[in-house]
Amino acid sequence: MKKSLLKSKLKQIFLKHKLSKNHAEICSNYLVKAEILDAKGHGLARLKMYCDRIKAKVINPKPKIKIKKISSSASYIDADNSIGFVSADIGIKQAIKNAKKTGIGLVAIKKSGHYGLSSFYAEQAVNNKLMVFCFTNAPAALAPHGAKKSLFGTNPICFGVPTGGVPFVFDASTSMINRGAIRRADKLGLKIPYGVALNKQGRITTNAKEALRGTQLPIAGFKGSGLAWMVDILSGVFTGSSHGGKTKDPFDDFSGPQNMGHLFITINPKIFIGSKFIKEIKKNIKLVKKLPKAKGFSNILYPGERRNKTYKKNLNKDISIPAKISKEMDELNA
Amino acid sequence: MKKSLLKSKLKQIFLKHKLSKNHAEICSNYLVKAEILDAKGHGLARLKMYCDRIKAKVINPKPKIKIKKISSSASYIDADNSIGFVSADIGIKQAIKNAKKTGIGLVAIKKSGHYGLSSFYAEQAVNNKLMVFCFTNAPAALAPHGAKKSLFGTNPICFGVPTGGVPFVFDASTSMINRGAIRRADKLGLKIPYGVALNKQGRITTNAKEALRGTQLPIAGFKGSGLAWMVDILSGVFTGSSHGGKTKDPFDDFSGPQNMGHLFITINPKIFIGSKFIKEIKKNIKLVKKLPKAKGFSNILYPGERRNKTYKKNLNKDISIPAKISKEMDELNA
Repeated sequence: MKKSLLKSKLKQIFLKHKLSKNHAEICSNYLVKAEILDAKGHGLARLKMYCDRIKAKVINPKPKIKIKKISSSASYIDADNSIGFVSADIGIKQAIKNAKKTGIGLVAIKKSGHYGLSSFYAEQAVNNKLMVFCFTNAPAALAPHGAKKSLFGTNPICFGVPTGGVPFVFDASTSMINRGAIRRADKLGLKIPYGVALNKQGRITTNAKEALRGTQLPIAGFKGSGLAWMVDILSGVFTGSSHGGKTKDPFDDFSGPQNMGHLFITINPKIFIGSKFIKEIKKNIKLVKKLPKAKGFSNILYPGERRNKTYKKNLNKDISIPAKISKEMDELNA
Repeated sequence: MKKSLLKSKLKQIFLKHKLSKNHAEICSNYLVKAEILDAKGHGLARLKMYCDRIKAKVINPKPKIKIKKISSSASYIDADNSIGFVSADIGIKQAIKNAKKTGIGLVAIKKSGHYGLSSFYAEQAVNNKLMVFCFTNAPAALAPHGAKKSLFGTNPICFGVPTGGVPFVFDASTSMINRGAIRRADKLGLKIPYGVALNKQGRITTNAKEALRGTQLPIAGFKGSGLAWMVDILSGVFTGSSHGGKTKDPFDDFSGPQNMGHLFITINPKIFIGSKFIKEIKKNIKLVKKLPKAKGFSNILYPGERRNKTYKKNLNKDISIPAKISKEMDELNA
C-alpha cells in the first residue's frame, strides 16, 4: 500500500476512535515510521490493540496532558493515559526545549503507554544537536537473574548523539530478542530463534505462543538483568509510574490503563568542549571504522546506521500489509 | 596484614612518591577498599604501576586540579594528570554538591587516570540520597562488533540509587570479564575462563597473557559493543579526553599520561514524586525478591548487595597479600 494512502487510512481509524486530529496524525506517523523501519512488531501489528484499548476505556483518546515545571531543566508530565506516541512526542519536545535553555533536560512521563521505538524520540533530540537517553519500561517479559518468572519488561536502553551526519542512536532491549518480534511471530505463525526464551516449565522453546506465556532471557545473565532493573527504576519508580512487573500487558490485560513511564535526559554535547565535539566524534567513528574487520564483515556500522539505511531503502517503497492485518484495518474502519 | 598497618604502609609509599598527605590518604583508602571488596584487580596489584608512572612522569603526583563552573548543574574538571582516585574523589563530591543545589549534577573530568571501581563513587552519591551514573573509559581491550582488534575499553556502566537500606549500585563492565581479573591471573599465573577472550590470531584462549595481547569479547555481541561505544563517547569524546582506543594502557605504555575521562551524572530521586520515592523503591525490590527462584538460587540479590556482603564479611579480617606483591611493596618503600 502507498504510504500516503496508509497514513490517511490510519488517521481515519484513529479519528473514528475519537482521537483529536493532531493526535491521530502523531499516531499514524509513528506507526508508518515503524513499518518503514521494518520494526513490524511496533507497527500495524499493534493497531487493533490500540483501538481495542480505547473501546475498553483503558486508553484515553482525549487526554488532558499536564506539563508541570519542576525547574528550568526538569519537567513532569501526567499523560492522562494517552497513547504512548502522543505523550512521548510531547515529552521529547519538552526535553529538547529544556536542554536548549540550560544544557540539560530531564523529563519524566507518567500514565503513558507503549510508545513504539525509543529511537523515534532519540532521533528528534539528536536532530536538535543534543545527546539523549530514552528509558521506558514495558510489561513483564524477562526473568530477573535468579528468578524463574518474568517481572522486568524488555526495557530498552537508548542513547543518541549527534555526529554531523547520520545520528548515532543505540537502541537495544535488555532481552535476547524484542518482545514485538515474538508477538509478530505468534500473529503470523512463525518460529522464534533458539535460546532466546523459556516456556512456562523453564525449558527453551521456539514456539512464540509458549514464549509469550513463559519468560524471555536477558542478555549476559546478571548484567542484562541489572540493566533491565536500572531501566525499571528510572522509567517506573522515579517517574511515579507502574514498576516491579505491574505494567499491564496491552494485548492481554484490559483491567486498567498501562500506566507506563518514560524518562528522557537531554544534554548539550558542546557544554564542555564547545564546537570541537563534532570534530572529535567524527574522529572517534573513523577510528572504529578503519579497524581490521572480523570474518563475515565488510564494514563496521555504528548504532543507527543500519536503521538509517533501512529507512532510506524503504522510503520510496510501498508498505506490504499481511492479509490478517489488512482485514483488521478494514474492520476498524468500518 | 592488618588494614591499619597496610594503610599506613601505602600512605608512606605514596608520600615517598611525592603525593601530598591528603592525596596519599585518598589513594590508600581506595586501594584498601578494593582489597576489602575482593576486587583484587583494582587493588594492590596496581600499586607498583601507579608508582612507576609517577617515576616516569606520566602521573603527576602534585596536580593542580582546576574545577570550572559551567552552570549551577555542570562542572568541568581538569585533573592535570593526577592519579584517577584523586580526581574522581573531587569530581563525585562536586557532582553531589551540584545535584543538591539544582536537582541534577553533571561533572566531566579530563586528564585523569584509572580510578578503581566506579562503585566507589556511585556509593558516595547514593549515601547522599542521590541517583547516579558513573562512566569511565579505559585502555583498548574489547573489539567493536565487526572488528577483530581491540579498541574500546571494558568501559563499565555504573548506576546507583538509594533504597533506604543497602545502596543499589549496578557496576558492570561491558566485557565478559573484567580486565583487572585477567591482569591478576597473569600476575599470579592463573588461567582465565573459557570463552571470554581471543588471542592475537582471533582464537579463544584461557591463557591470561595471550588474552591481554589479543582482545576481550563484549557481552551480547552488538549490544555490548554499542554500550561500550556509548561509554567511550560519554566519558571520552564528551569530556575532551582520550577516546577511540587512544587511552594509554597504564601497565604497558609509558609514552605519556593516560588522559582518561570520567563522567558523573547525579539526580535527586525525589524531584518528581517526593518522599514517596523510597517507599516505591522498597516495594520494587520486594516484588523482585519474592519471585519464585530459579534452580540453584535460594534468594535474589539486587546489584550492590553482594558487594555489601563481601565488604561486611571482610571488614574485620586481615588482608592477605601475595608474596610477589608484598615484595613489590617493600621495594617501593625502601
